[in-house]
Amino acid sequence: MKLLLKIAFLGTSYCGYQVQNNGATIQGTFNEVSLKLFGYECDIVGCSRTDSGVHANEFYLSVTKKGEDFIECSIPLARVPVAFNSLLPDDISVLEASYVPKDFHPRYSVKYKEYIYKIWNGTVKNPFDADRAYKAPLFIDDETLERMNAYANRFVGTKDFASFMASGSKIVDTTRNVKYAEVYKEGDYVIFKVAADGFLYNMVRIMVGTLLDNARVMNPSSYIDLIIESKDRSRAGATAPSYGLYLNKVVYDFGG
Amino acid sequence: MKLLLKIAFLGTSYCGYQVQNNGATIQGTFNEVSLKLFGYECDIVGCSRTDSGVHANEFYLSVTKKGEDFIECSIPLARVPVAFNSLLPDDISVLEASYVPKDFHPRYSVKYKEYIYKIWNGTVKNPFDADRAYKAPLFIDDETLERMNAYANRFVGTKDFASFMASGSKIVDTTRNVKYAEVYKEGDYVIFKVAADGFLYNMVRIMVGTLLDNARVMNPSSYIDLIIESKDRSRAGATAPSYGLYLNKVVYDFGG
Repeated sequence: MKLLLKIAFLGTSYCGYQVQNNGATIQGTFNEVSLKLFGYECDIVGCSRTDSGVHANEFYLSVTKKGEDFIECSIPLARVPVAFNSLLPDDISVLEASYVPKDFHPRYSVKYKEYIYKIWNGTVKNPFDADRAYKAPLFIDDETLERMNAYANRFVGTKDFASFMASGSKIVDTTRNVKYAEVYKEGDYVIFKVAADGFLYNMVRIMVGTLLDNARVMNPSSYIDLIIESKDRSRAGATAPSYGLYLNKVVYDFGG
Repeated sequence: MKLLLKIAFLGTSYCGYQVQNNGATIQGTFNEVSLKLFGYECDIVGCSRTDSGVHANEFYLSVTKKGEDFIECSIPLARVPVAFNSLLPDDISVLEASYVPKDFHPRYSVKYKEYIYKIWNGTVKNPFDADRAYKAPLFIDDETLERMNAYANRFVGTKDFASFMASGSKIVDTTRNVKYAEVYKEGDYVIFKVAADGFLYNMVRIMVGTLLDNARVMNPSSYIDLIIESKDRSRAGATAPSYGLYLNKVVYDFGG
């Protein structure tokens, strides 16, 4: 069996998920902590390669003995989160632990993932949100919000999202199934929520940039279809900053 | 006229309010920004000397020309917050600006101040709150909460709070009028809220430490009276960490 951890983290201090030479990462931190906890080196496999500064309300990673497809863990499963949390830095938390079969893969077994993007829409700067929500350069009133939501709804379906991938990516199959995509208010925040079976590099951030760039434009929502159909990155909007983005939910086939 | 700014800040990166040699402070930051904005040096007077790591949802400070009791400001008042915010770091925000008479003093004119202390009471570590709420070493159930609230209510009134002052303080008159003091739940947080005409050094943090130290003890709430009457710091509890504390509201005689 593999050990599967459900975690959450504030991404501000990390150079993304994946191990790098030039800074702390989520994967690297779990490499170190697992070694301390189990006394042997482990392989850490995550559900997603989040970018530098991106946060997670929910993220899954598997822990196995290095080069093996199992874990030897003498800690009772119910105590595993506490054991990890006592060694992890304050900005990473293990929420739950479970055992999964050897053929389970944190990334390939994903049914769909949900991201949210937080836009601060208050009338004054929020000093508590500097690295946690994007202060967009426009105020989003109810009419603008409706328009952004109508635009967002056009993302739904199985479509080629080549226009919404960072240029330079080497992915060949750029078709993804977006299950839902909406824009709504939550207090002084405007939230973009999107779920899909997979995401291209920077896809959510380019979607947000496109919604914001077109928020004040009186185009019909089908304008988004034209951007999608063009398969041209330059037709979509700017890439919104990483620090507004949260991996929010990961759904597996077993319902996890 | 003096310029009065209503501000908010995340205290994590600051060595408290007051200018120091060994680190950034709120006062020091406004010294620098005011010089840039007005072209001359200013005196910055705050409503409170908050400690290192303490936050403010509401804090007032006055800005006057250095050595004078007035300001020369060519920026329209409505534009002053934006002008300051464009120069301030992301973790400090000017919420409002107004002019006040020369005899107004941000500290001495205070009628009362309200602090809140945030305790994280979720079942797992919250990675988004490391420097914003205290993870107390006990789970506060409803019964414990009621007991803590009953204890807190005993703080209300005009009393000598010498037991709730950091030892070594040189204040002679340690009597303060506490207007209200309560403990309540807000989602996964437990909040201690207290208002008084003035606070002794570390008073709120010692109150919180005392509530937590006695949370599981089945004393009658009058036990708090004994601690107050002893006027002995060692009878009160530990000093809770600074990073759970927020100056939440400042009420002036003019109703500001």
